[in-house]
Amino acid sequence: MTDARPPLATLSLSVNDLTRPLVERLLASADALELSVARLDGGTCIVDAGIKTRGSVTAGLLIGEICMGGLGQVGLRSGAADGWPTWVEVRSSQPVLACLASQYAGWSLAASKEQTGGKKFFSLGSGPARALAAKEALFAELGYRDQADTGVLVLEVDRPPPQVVIDKLLRDCKLQADALTLILTPTTSLAGTTQVVARVLEVALHKAHELGYALGNIVEGVATAPLPAPSPDGVVAMGRTNDAILYGGRVHLSVRGDDAAARQLALQLPSRNSRDYGRSFADIFKEVEYDFYKIDGALFAPAEVWVSNLDSGNTWHAGALNMALLQGLWLQEA
Amino acid sequence: MTDARPPLATLSLSVNDLTRPLVERLLASADALELSVARLDGGTCIVDAGIKTRGSVTAGLLIGEICMGGLGQVGLRSGAADGWPTWVEVRSSQPVLACLASQYAGWSLAASKEQTGGKKFFSLGSGPARALAAKEALFAELGYRDQADTGVLVLEVDRPPPQVVIDKLLRDCKLQADALTLILTPTTSLAGTTQVVARVLEVALHKAHELGYALGNIVEGVATAPLPAPSPDGVVAMGRTNDAILYGGRVHLSVRGDDAAARQLALQLPSRNSRDYGRSFADIFKEVEYDFYKIDGALFAPAEVWVSNLDSGNTWHAGALNMALLQGLWLQEA
Amino acid sequence: MTDARPPLATLSLSVNDLTRPLVERLLASADALELSVARLDGGTCIVDAGIKTRGSVTAGLLIGEICMGGLGQVGLRSGAADGWPTWVEVRSSQPVLACLASQYAGWSLAASKEQTGGKKFFSLGSGPARALAAKEALFAELGYRDQADTGVLVLEVDRPPPQVVIDKLLRDCKLQADALTLILTPTTSLAGTTQVVARVLEVALHKAHELGYALGNIVEGVATAPLPAPSPDGVVAMGRTNDAILYGGRVHLSVRGDDAAARQLALQLPSRNSRDYGRSFADIFKEVEYDFYKIDGALFAPAEVWVSNLDSGNTWHAGALNMALLQGLWLQEA
Repeated sequence: MTDARPPLATLSLSVNDLTRPLVERLLASADALELSVARLDGGTCIVDAGIKTRGSVTAGLLIGEICMGGLGQVGLRSGAADGWPTWVEVRSSQPVLACLASQYAGWSLAASKEQTGGKKFFSLGSGPARALAAKEALFAELGYRDQADTGVLVLEVDRPPPQVVIDKLLRDCKLQADALTLILTPTTSLAGTTQVVARVLEVALHKAHELGYALGNIVEGVATAPLPAPSPDGVVAMGRTNDAILYGGRVHLSVRGDDAAARQLALQLPSRNSRDYGRSFADIFKEVEYDFYKIDGALFAPAEVWVSNLDSGNTWHAGALNMALLQGLWLQEA
Repeated sequence: MTDARPPLATLSLSVNDLTRPLVERLLASADALELSVARLDGGTCIVDAGIKTRGSVTAGLLIGEICMGGLGQVGLRSGAADGWPTWVEVRSSQPVLACLASQYAGWSLAASKEQTGGKKFFSLGSGPARALAAKEALFAELGYRDQADTGVLVLEVDRPPPQVVIDKLLRDCKLQADALTLILTPTTSLAGTTQVVARVLEVALHKAHELGYALGNIVEGVATAPLPAPSPDGVVAMGRTNDAILYGGRVHLSVRGDDAAARQLALQLPSRNSRDYGRSFADIFKEVEYDFYKIDGALFAPAEVWVSNLDSGNTWHAGALNMALLQGLWLQEA
Repeated sequence: MTDARPPLATLSLSVNDLTRPLVERLLASADALELSVARLDGGTCIVDAGIKTRGSVTAGLLIGEICMGGLGQVGLRSGAADGWPTWVEVRSSQPVLACLASQYAGWSLAASKEQTGGKKFFSLGSGPARALAAKEALFAELGYRDQADTGVLVLEVDRPPPQVVIDKLLRDCKLQADALTLILTPTTSLAGTTQVVARVLEVALHKAHELGYALGNIVEGVATAPLPAPSPDGVVAMGRTNDAILYGGRVHLSVRGDDAAARQLALQLPSRNSRDYGRSFADIFKEVEYDFYKIDGALFAPAEVWVSNLDSGNTWHAGALNMALLQGLWLQEA
């Protein structure tokens, strides 16, 4: 099997510029979205989307689109399809830029006790500003780096980052202090859970990358996953957002290239290929004593997958939802 | 069971100001939406959405969002889920303000024969202008009153209100005559039926209120209901919009507070708890000789309910659709 | 059976003026949508949506709305309803204008070898500019003709039209050269396949017309159809878009007039009334040796239909999807 690896196109697109109108809408609607907005002394804008505020699903959907660099659509669907009432729908005609160059939570941001003068800080930054700094090895592979006068980053944290982290962000992104917006979304909040479930397409792209599939061949993606209630317990909340994707995520990718690679992608992509498949993420996480790196990477994938190859017109389907598992985890006996 | 009753937040939001852009869109698109727009001598704007005009589903969806004070999203879904082709979807991250402070048809507007110089007039006003007048006891309970320079009210009527009613509206809302917009939507029209079915979430909130549930604890709502064809017969048309919600409505509420209250809300909310459940609304209405107040209040509720408690992460599910009943009422043998 | 034939209302609407903002959005987002935009010497704007460019589903949805003259909504739904992951949803509250006066591919544009100085050219133009020229007999029947300073036409072609065709378009549409936009969408592209499947409602209206149903009585339409992967083979690609509608299309029409006509429309509309029903369009097309006019016209119809009569409140349902046939055609054994 060989794959031509086409260059990632549309390098003219600036994920930060494209996202600016969405950020402005978020700020202008802060009260309706149950967010609070503060300015640090230097002018950096901090949006609290669930720490001291309630946050909201509507905010989470908009933050999902912000994370995708303005190159994705995130919506909500209600009904009772497959036994759950509320689903997140995601799509992008620029899935590699939207999901990997922007939405993926790949920028490791840490500060020691000495640096913060208090508790140590750690977070994985996601969103468009990652592409300004381009600190991750992934960016060299993507051949993409953004240049823009403003930037926005999303942090799944339950407290604001320390000044030392903000200084690093401004330096790495080459931004004036008042040109950076940070959105803080704990997974325990409605906005936080919503914007993580909105990563269902990104999870598929990340696993495709792990499988060695040529990213430049992925040209369209649509996906859906059930939206669980956030849990006030951080580990449970994180577990639910993962379970939503691993057991309830559906993804349809359109690719180019040869049929053997597309078929193999469809077969290898679903979460059921993992040795850890079948138990809740929270259980697995406890079993490995909260050491993320002991979890089988193959688990991080949607449950059900379609891959269509535009160069042949062929489509493969693999995997299946496991809604019984999710209902067992998410629903109480009434 | 005790519930802390948190204050209703986001009192900074003006449902009339938030709705203004939607009203402007309605007026600018009147021809495409099959509406007619007229100005009374004083400048009050009257939108006919189904009396002498055809009206449309698209108008009804927009009027639904206007009714929700700009704090809700109303959309259409097509397909054949559960055996019906067209469904209305509604959601709000401010369900109490959107549904109860704005959308609920709670403002009783009456004029006697003497006052009108002709037929007597009665209508229940709904939409943002209710919150300017705040005449209903509900507003004291909500602790909300809007202040704005413009207002919009929706009336489910088949003729324009008499001047005496318009004068009262202007006085109670403290509006200049040219700052008030009235939207007239008979239930027999496409727009009328659509905007009533879009009350599926509001019906759930109203029943939660009737059950004594602490409204301030309800923080998110998503809902869906099938959209019937309007009937040219007013009683049948009203019956269908009620049946759509009672037998086809699904609602997912996110709440705060204790689990016992959330579980009880889920169990008590569905329409099947009513002694009148199982027959068409039109039949029930005839049986009580068209005396609304003899109908069991517990009937006014969605068919199927999920309640998620954000303070515990638990979700309860109760009730079920009764699509066989709706198909029997709405479909002809071909 | 008699039908009053009401005049087609809302003649005040200009499909080209209403579409202008959508065209501007298409041009402004060309990079994100994977389109290229060029200006001919005279200023005519040529949008390549899949010839030398990749095109995209998002572009196809927007082109679908452009084709509908700004009087329709075209969206994407993901999930696995009926065993296929991605569906196009279409609706219009002006279905006759949107679908027949604008979206229908009815304007025959041909140029001989002598005229082109190369290969002969043929295409069926669709979209708003048809209504500026109003060359087709259909327009007299509709009683509609647009007047506007700009126009846009969609061509399902794999190469740009020759200058002689462009000159004819400008002349017939009475447009300055720089006031015309041509969008080129080969069916083999993502945008092309998407915008053809978005014709599911138009196909229903066209067949209603063929059946002699009074078009002025059709006042609302909502529809959905599965979105196949485009095939690189032109005949297969065209076949798939037809199959998507014939075997996967669902349409709900709201009409006025008498019940007998509405019931008959529901019964006669579905594709299964055709003698050719049950085989793939590509197979049928080959069998008739690629002579379109030998295919039974009754085949061009959605699979499943609901017709609601607003004058009686009655609804009829006929036909059914044949997803097994589509899965057999579109899915590979994994």
